[in-house]
Order: sequence, then structure tokens, then C-alpha cells
Amino acid sequence: MADPPTYDTVSFLSDFGTEDEFAGVVRSVITSLAPQVRVIDLTHGIPAHDVRAGGLALARAVQYLVPGVVLAVVDPGVGTDRRAVAVEAPEAGSVFVGPDNGLLASAVAMAGGGSRAVSLTETSFHLPAPGATFAGRDVFAPVAAHLCNGVPLDELGSEVDPAGLRPGVLPVARTEAAGLVAEVLWVDRFGNLQLNVGPEEIEAYGDPLLISFAGTTRSARRVQAYGEIGPGALGLVVDAYGLVSLCLERQSAAAELGLGTGASVTLAAAGERSTGDGAGASSPATPVNLGPTRSAPDGRGAP
Amino acid sequence: MADPPTYDTVSFLSDFGTEDEFAGVVRSVITSLAPQVRVIDLTHGIPAHDVRAGGLALARAVQYLVPGVVLAVVDPGVGTDRRAVAVEAPEAGSVFVGPDNGLLASAVAMAGGGSRAVSLTETSFHLPAPGATFAGRDVFAPVAAHLCNGVPLDELGSEVDPAGLRPGVLPVARTEAAGLVAEVLWVDRFGNLQLNVGPEEIEAYGDPLLISFAGTTRSARRVQAYGEIGPGALGLVVDAYGLVSLCLERQSAAAELGLGTGASVTLAAAGERSTGDGAGASSPATPVNLGPTRSAPDGRGAP
Amino acid sequence: MADPPTYDTVSFLSDFGTEDEFAGVVRSVITSLAPQVRVIDLTHGIPAHDVRAGGLALARAVQYLVPGVVLAVVDPGVGTDRRAVAVEAPEAGSVFVGPDNGLLASAVAMAGGGSRAVSLTETSFHLPAPGATFAGRDVFAPVAAHLCNGVPLDELGSEVDPAGLRPGVLPVARTEAAGLVAEVLWVDRFGNLQLNVGPEEIEAYGDPLLISFAGTTRSARRVQAYGEIGPGALGLVVDAYGLVSLCLERQSAAAELGLGTGASVTLAAAGERSTGDGAGASSPATPVNLGPTRSAPDGRGAP
Repeated sequence: MADPPTYDTVSFLSDFGTEDEFAGVVRSVITSLAPQVRVIDLTHGIPAHDVRAGGLALARAVQYLVPGVVLAVVDPGVGTDRRAVAVEAPEAGSVFVGPDNGLLASAVAMAGGGSRAVSLTETSFHLPAPGATFAGRDVFAPVAAHLCNGVPLDELGSEVDPAGLRPGVLPVARTEAAGLVAEVLWVDRFGNLQLNVGPEEIEAYGDPLLISFAGTTRSARRVQAYGEIGPGALGLVVDAYGLVSLCLERQSAAAELGLGTGASVTLAAAGERSTGDGAGASSPATPVNLGPTRSAPDGRGAP
Repeated sequence: MADPPTYDTVSFLSDFGTEDEFAGVVRSVITSLAPQVRVIDLTHGIPAHDVRAGGLALARAVQYLVPGVVLAVVDPGVGTDRRAVAVEAPEAGSVFVGPDNGLLASAVAMAGGGSRAVSLTETSFHLPAPGATFAGRDVFAPVAAHLCNGVPLDELGSEVDPAGLRPGVLPVARTEAAGLVAEVLWVDRFGNLQLNVGPEEIEAYGDPLLISFAGTTRSARRVQAYGEIGPGALGLVVDAYGLVSLCLERQSAAAELGLGTGASVTLAAAGERSTGDGAGASSPATPVNLGPTRSAPDGRGAP
Repeated sequence: MADPPTYDTVSFLSDFGTEDEFAGVVRSVITSLAPQVRVIDLTHGIPAHDVRAGGLALARAVQYLVPGVVLAVVDPGVGTDRRAVAVEAPEAGSVFVGPDNGLLASAVAMAGGGSRAVSLTETSFHLPAPGATFAGRDVFAPVAAHLCNGVPLDELGSEVDPAGLRPGVLPVARTEAAGLVAEVLWVDRFGNLQLNVGPEEIEAYGDPLLISFAGTTRSARRVQAYGEIGPGALGLVVDAYGLVSLCLERQSAAAELGLGTGASVTLAAAGERSTGDGAGASSPATPVNLGPTRSAPDGRGAP
């Protein structure tokens, strides 16, 4: 039988922020137990408790990660009976470690799916702790380190069915009389508004398009780069993830338009009469995936 | 005689923030002088000039740090006659480097105490600098690197008595007629309010307790996890450091209650009549330690 | 012929912030392609799109960087016809990689100047990408990794004249009847106001000086350290970069005086009658360099 794999990289995402020492302590625990390991911080700026935002960030990053352990902690249910899990994704050569609350699902699916998973019930691989509030330090970090050191997955706890892990939930854009009713998935640092829309979905709408939100309708032109939008104008850019983003040049579209994550935006052909503004319409939430696996035959959003 | 020790890890905490390149330049200087060393950032988000907050963060982290050099810089007195020091803590296998302003004291004590200390007066181990405002770059980083490279502690400057280093000062909770008058030690990113209270100190108060602050009294229930508190309710959680924290579920207790670091909070049994609210009461400031060494026989708060 | 150089360090500065996973993905791409490389983050807190601020931060840091690849990305023109470049600076043993928008110029000059440069037109060294908005991930990171791995500079694209790269533009302080009209170059985390003034330029003004801005005139004393200024007073400190900074003790001068980057400040002898306040005066923008190369014979601000 083959030796269990070892890993030399832990990619680490959390909602720990940079003000407290949480992320630093997790890095210290990993390094103490597995000094040969390199920790790559993806981000610790996920909004506090925002599992959806964390799952989206992980899914955007996953195809660029170094094979190894992927540690993700956005964990409002820490200390309750939510499961802590490790999920093996053999195509990516990675093991995902984190809470079973939907955070890992989209990334695991984009990494080719999970083949095996365990619930991290074997406490001898955890740190002793006076309270149950910091599983990043006491459960996930030591488990990540032990995986790097070659501890076999199935020694870390009881096996669970990867298909039974909690799925990530993403809204699907839908076509209505007024046009394509989309939702803002992500507002990045620059205020660009990523929509849950691929470029092929708005192909038929021509250029420019009409963009309606919160009672307002504006025109937006398709461009290849932010720098082609022009001062004060709205642009639609196919972003680095292959999704359509609503942007201004050197300004925050989020601030300028007053839109945030989850806001509804309707896209329509300029020739059409835009009769609805999409405001108040709530997209149906269905388990789907970002990007490549989005139209996967089985339509499943989780491994 | 034994060779002087070498170290391969620098754990680094500061109030440099992440907006400027301060922390990056310190990392660069350490790596230039000691390329074999790994720098682990604990946090650079300590509030500017807040020596107490930096000392508490270091004390919370210290038992999880990789043995090696611990570099801490919160240094409002930079360039004045405050001493720059290196303190050897042999039980932890570490040397603490930073300003002698109380920042290091609690962590050194929790690391088993300092056996030797030097004032960093030997300028040949520093970088030349046009101005004296950035000791992190010009004094502490090169000293940390030289220690890693095996420069003996006593070559870095004149020996000083570890017992003479400036102590960390922490408030002690005190029992009054109204109950246990505590203070908020730390507000973390999630808005949890860590109190200077261990669970054994409120054992006798039953469950739920009454919590009084700034003229308000509310009830709080003891729970094991944030997720057990319930929407809108107040909970008392034994946190990951063994201290009692006042928390809300998926909300910031700090924002909701309007409380910050240093605020006074009185805990009492629900049966008692809470006659005082603790507001305005200032706890006596005595040198004490966090956690395990808190009740150390000698009661000393500094090495 | 000698083998092309290899590098083991990438120093990395950007305006990506810490909230999104941008910087983490760049680190992942570099590590995937060049696992032996260490990435040192300088800062990712440059204000969004602020090429001047990024160039100044890089110039302040450059003499402390580990020889290797210096990756800098503040790139509002991403995806347009602005060039992406790599510039060899042999005196520093470094190659600077980033957009040709003035971001690199001051740092390259301070590193001894660029000897060779290429436009990064050879797309076989880039990552395929669905959209052109994230050159940090798709162009600059893989190029930095390939340089570390020993890919010769001239294979990365077509050679360009280093002298033709876009210069950094810095304001020069000028002497007027009212005194020395200076500009705030940088406001650091602590609110210190770095001016484009060396200590020799105010030598003749005695001590204290008069400082005029936005219709106000105040006195400021020269001191060696922030801690010598005294509560509420204004101090002039020669900072760690050899420039004059306007500071308060343990308070933000920026917040207290209401001044930010680019603000005009006039310095004069206390004996003089300060007739102008410098407000509204715009300094002439001329290509100059920070620090040592500032008075370079040819007065050029870019390699």
C-alpha cells in the first residue's frame, strides 16, 4: 500500500481580519507542528461570519492554489454541533479543511470534487483548549499540520459521505420580461460589482445595454478594460473570472451606484423598454457553481 | 562552553498597520541579514501607540509561538531614552526583542520569565539611519536577525536586570457590594468583549447573571459556544484563553452594547439587587498576568 | 556566456488591499511556478489606483529590499495599451516588474538605475485568462516566477530603452517670499506628515519655525524624536528617510491639522513675517527623486 501523501503548503483563508493575532497564531501552530510547511495567506478579510463571501473567495482562488492543504475558517457555528471536516480532492492534489457549513463546497467542486471526507472527531490531533471558541487554532491548524506531516485522512475522524456535505448556495440569474435579473456576487476593493452572469448570457442584448437597479436605469457599454470605460460612464467588463462586472473607471461603482453584495441588477437590450428595475426581486437560491463547473451535467453545487 | 543558540523563526507583532510598508521593510531587513529565517507575522493591527493592547495580544499568543526570536514593536517613545531590550526566556526557547515600555512583560512572564536581558546599546549591530523614528527597521530588525545568526545576547549591549524591566499593568477585577466589577480587556474583530475574569470567579453567581454597565442592566446566560446564545440575547462564553467573554450571536457585542476596551462591567447573581452599574469606577491597576501564571506564587507581573 | 541569473525572493507591493484574495492568489501563482521562492509582502495597502503613492512607498523601501525580483502592481490602466515591463537594475541585483506607468521609476533610479528593460509581450510566459482585468495574477506573477527560475530577461518580450520608461513625478519644494513652499508627500499610519524637504533646506530658518497651511500659521520646534515634541505641540522631525516630517506626539498631525497627501505647507523663520500661507499654491511637478539620488547631476527622475 502506498504511503499516505504529505504536503508542504497550507493555503489559508479566514474571516479573522488583520487587527487581532488570530491568523498569526494559526500560522504559529501550523509551523510549530510542521516546520517544513509554507503557509500562504489567501485573505483574512472575509466579512465576519460571512460564509457565502468566504466560499466565493475560495472558489475564485481555487484553481490557482498550490496543491496541498487548503484551510478555510469562516465559522459562526464554532463550538456547536456543526461538523469540522477534511475533504480530499484528488484531482487538485489537495485536502480542504474547515467547518462543514457550505464554505468549502464550491471550491471543492471546482477542484474536481471530493473523493473522501472525514469528520474531525479524533481529538488527539487537536490542541487542548480552555474554551471552544477558536477552532482555527485548536482544531483546524493542528489537523492541517498533521495532514502535511503524512497523517492519513481516515485517522483524523470518522468517514462521512462527501456527497452529504453542506452545499454552497449561489443565486442564479433569471430571464424575465424586463431582461436578465442578476445579483451582485462580490464587490471588490476597487468597487467593481461582479454579477452572477457570464458574457454569453448577455450576448443577445447588443451594446450598450440598459442596467436597472433600485428604480434607476442607466446605460453601460461593453469594454475589455476598466481604462476603456471613460470618465463617469458605466462599463461592463468580463473580469478575470469570466464573469460580467459592472464598473466605473478609477472610481468605485459600488459607491457611485449605491450597490452592495446581494443587490439585484437587471440587464436588458437598449432597444427594449425596461419595465422592471429588479429591485425587490429575489433571485431563487439554488446550489450552483462558479465558472467552469457551472453547467456541469448533474447541476450539483457541492461534492 | 556551548555555542550560542541560533534561531530560525522570528514572530513579529507591531502597531505598524498594513497600509504602509513598515512591516514589509522590517521583514526585508531580517531576510537580508538572515536569509534562512522565517518571519511569522502575528499581527500589525495593534492600535497605534497602544502598548497595553500590544502586550495583551502578545500574551494571548505567546504559548503558541514557535521557539525563536519574538519581535514586538509598539513604541511611542522611539528615539527617546526609553531602552531597547532583548530578553532571554529559556523555558520557551525564545528571546523577546522590543522597547522596554511594558510591551513584553506579560508575555515574558507567561513564557516562564526572563533569565537575562540586555539593553541594545551596541550600535554596530544596528543599521545606520538618517533619523531616529523607525527603530523597527534600524534597531530591532537587525538585532533579531543577528540573534538568529548566533550573535550572543551579551554582545548586543549592556546587561540589565530582567527584574528591572518595565512591568505590564493589567487591571484586576474586584468584588463590591454590587457584584464583581470587571473591565473589558479586549474587543476582538467579532465584537466579543473579553473580561478580566476567569470562570471560577463567577461560579457562585449562578446562571443567568446580571450584567451592568453604563447605567444599564441586562441578563446574560452562560453558554459553551457563540452559536448557543440565541438571537439578540447576551451570552457569557469561556473563550479560547480561559477568560469570560460577553458576546452576542453573529453580532458585535461591542457595537450593540456600546462598550470598548477599558469599559467597566459589573457581574452579579440574578437574585441580587444590582445597585451599582460599575460605570465610572476605575479598577486598581496592579501588575498581574493573564491565564496560567495569573495566580503564580510570587504574584509578579513582569520578569 | 554566463548563465542567466536566478532569484530566490520576490518583494511584492500593490494596491490590492487585504480584504480580497488578490494578493494571496498572486502569492499562490508565484509559488506554484517557482516553489523555491520566498515572497515578501511590502504592503498591499497603497490607496486604490494611486500610482504616485505606490511609487513613493517603493522608493522609501527600495534600499532595504532583498536582491531579487521586485513586483509592484498599482495598475489603473490594466488591459489597455499601457506597457507591462521588467527592468533590470544590476547595482541592486534586482529586476523590477510592473506596469510602465511611473510606479517603478523612482525606486529603479534609487536602486542605481535600469540597464535593460523589456515590454512583457511574450504571452507564453503569462497565464491564460478569461478577462484582462487581473494582470497581477495573469502577467506579473508568472513573469516574476519565470525570472526567479532563470528565464533570461530578453525572452520575456521585446527590449525597450530604459530611458524611455515613464518617469515618476514628484513635486519640488520652492522658495518664495513667504518661505519654503513644500508639499505633503505621505501621511503614515500614525498621522505624521512627511514633506518634500530635507533638513538642509530649512537649516537657515532657525528654531522654532513657522508653519503655514490653509490660512493657519503655527509654530513648530525641531526635535529628534516624536517623544520630545510635548503634548499638543507641533514638531519637525527628520524621519527615517532623511526628510522633514511635521508631527504631533502620540497624536495624528494629519487629523489634528486637517492635512493630507498633496497639501501645501509653507515653512519660514519665526522672525520673518509669514505673508503667504501656501494654500492653493500648486508646486511645479518635475521629475525628481527621493533621497540620495535627489540631487543627481542629470536631474532625471526615471531610469
